Amino acid sequence: MKKKYAVGIDIGGTTAKFGIVDRKGNILVQDRVPSNEHEVVEDFIDDMYAKLFPMIEEYGGTGNFVGIGMGAPNGNFYTGTIDYAPNLKWKGIIPIANLVEKKFGMVTKLTNDANAAAVGEMMYGCTKNIKHFITITLGTGVGSGIVIDGKIVLGHDGFAGELGHTIIRHGGRPHKTSALKGSLEAYASATGVRETAIEMLTEHPEVESLLRNYTINELTSETVYDCAMQGDTIANRIFEFTGQILGESLANFVMFSSPEAIILFGGLTKAGNLLLNPTRKHMEVNLLPIFQNKVKILFSELKEADAAILGASALVWDVKK
Amino acid sequence: MKKKYAVGIDIGGTTAKFGIVDRKGNILVQDRVPSNEHEVVEDFIDDMYAKLFPMIEEYGGTGNFVGIGMGAPNGNFYTGTIDYAPNLKWKGIIPIANLVEKKFGMVTKLTNDANAAAVGEMMYGCTKNIKHFITITLGTGVGSGIVIDGKIVLGHDGFAGELGHTIIRHGGRPHKTSALKGSLEAYASATGVRETAIEMLTEHPEVESLLRNYTINELTSETVYDCAMQGDTIANRIFEFTGQILGESLANFVMFSSPEAIILFGGLTKAGNLLLNPTRKHMEVNLLPIFQNKVKILFSELKEADAAILGASALVWDVKK
Repeated sequence: MKKKYAVGIDIGGTTAKFGIVDRKGNILVQDRVPSNEHEVVEDFIDDMYAKLFPMIEEYGGTGNFVGIGMGAPNGNFYTGTIDYAPNLKWKGIIPIANLVEKKFGMVTKLTNDANAAAVGEMMYGCTKNIKHFITITLGTGVGSGIVIDGKIVLGHDGFAGELGHTIIRHGGRPHKTSALKGSLEAYASATGVRETAIEMLTEHPEVESLLRNYTINELTSETVYDCAMQGDTIANRIFEFTGQILGESLANFVMFSSPEAIILFGGLTKAGNLLLNPTRKHMEVNLLPIFQNKVKILFSELKEADAAILGASALVWDVKK
Repeated sequence: MKKKYAVGIDIGGTTAKFGIVDRKGNILVQDRVPSNEHEVVEDFIDDMYAKLFPMIEEYGGTGNFVGIGMGAPNGNFYTGTIDYAPNLKWKGIIPIANLVEKKFGMVTKLTNDANAAAVGEMMYGCTKNIKHFITITLGTGVGSGIVIDGKIVLGHDGFAGELGHTIIRHGGRPHKTSALKGSLEAYASATGVRETAIEMLTEHPEVESLLRNYTINELTSETVYDCAMQGDTIANRIFEFTGQILGESLANFVMFSSPEAIILFGGLTKAGNLLLNPTRKHMEVNLLPIFQNKVKILFSELKEADAAILGASALVWDVKK
């Protein structure tokens, strides 16, 4: 009998969300536990088990499941370990896939959250028929998952696909946590948009802007978007600049793996064409002619609230094409 | 019976070199024909056939061969065509693999010269046991071949791996033929080293340099190397700068595909540690900690004179690991 369900677990800095997913990408039931309250990871797993295992039994027990897929920061597919995740409480190398597999008695696979998003897109989203693509998650930071020939690119050690940390402006804006200067993430993230806003407002005090009505804490990518939609010059320039940086980076990525499509995902994509138009323009002008007018830039079709659980669950389906 | 030989053909802008290669990477016999004297590609193939087919017969005839591998500028593995190669006489899309296959009655595969170099490295060179690596050819231009999980990365259209054209200095040095500014190739090539020399000598007229004894035509990457070895300050700065640009680019590539090794190849590698030391240093400082002190930078073990034929021939062996 074909197994019907998969478990998806998304471990974030404060919360772990988990749910039961069918082959079509419907989340049938979901719940969450805190992920920042347990000194040792075994206690966290016990708490999760107490809520998740009854859900599994409700759906026919482990025999009905292909397994458990997990996404976590610095999650390594090859080793099943979370390695030195800066935003998690458990330090060092945590063999979480093994621990979960033993506790639940189910096949368990792990990868980082950005790779999970790419696998989810391939299983349930807009790349069902695309074998070469890159997903870029534009959230607080910039995550990425690279798919070549229908397979996620993991690299020799499982850590491939850190495109948010590639340098796009030599000597540029310092990153808040890495020591790197001028990385994509320093610009094309919610945090980056806020910084660009502060920079532009400070550097051009003579230009009127609706953004000047907000306190510094209220200056977010959302307020910049609201002002841009009202025709505010600086707010529009901020998205133009963000799209330029993103587009230049995408051009470099295209010349690496020549994907058919790039899928954008995450909070910043709410800006729609305000972001997409300059992104596309600056990607195209920085490509060699053989790559021009070929690469689709798409917004993800997955609901943001569901995507993390879906992506994680997709790890255990056979997604080969 | 296991077939013993492969044919390798390397098509360049002025000459096509071809030879018969055994499984160990020995070129048993080789020859060449001009590649810029034939208005139509069929005439070129006829000329090559007249020299190459007798060689094949001398080695037991087509039954002893796995096939013909070809490397050519803009050669596309998927389609077997050379597409709009700027430095070849035959314009448009040339179905050369098909034509050669019919003429010789042998399986024929084509890819671009940089990808062929990577496949050659895997078959005969220093990456026999490495499944994730990138080769960078530092010649007149900068070519690249990317290998992930033992397979060359071709992308959705066969054109992946144009790393020489990725932008490393926003708004930087214009490329001579592409319209792109600040690409790796504009700096980390023989042409780029020469340009850096001219720039530095012009911008710092007060600094003494042995390089000032050469005419502008004599300023080449070789003369810069000679002067650097004699302790010349500007010549050493030129390699420091070239290595910085290359190292920063390599860091970006590592964060894409997390290779175990990067193989440098081509004329510029004669500079040895003059180039390698700054390259390694600037790669490391631009990597996230999870990638640091892991990636080997190696010089190719293939002789430059042989590499093009070897790389092309390697296309038809089964190089899967």
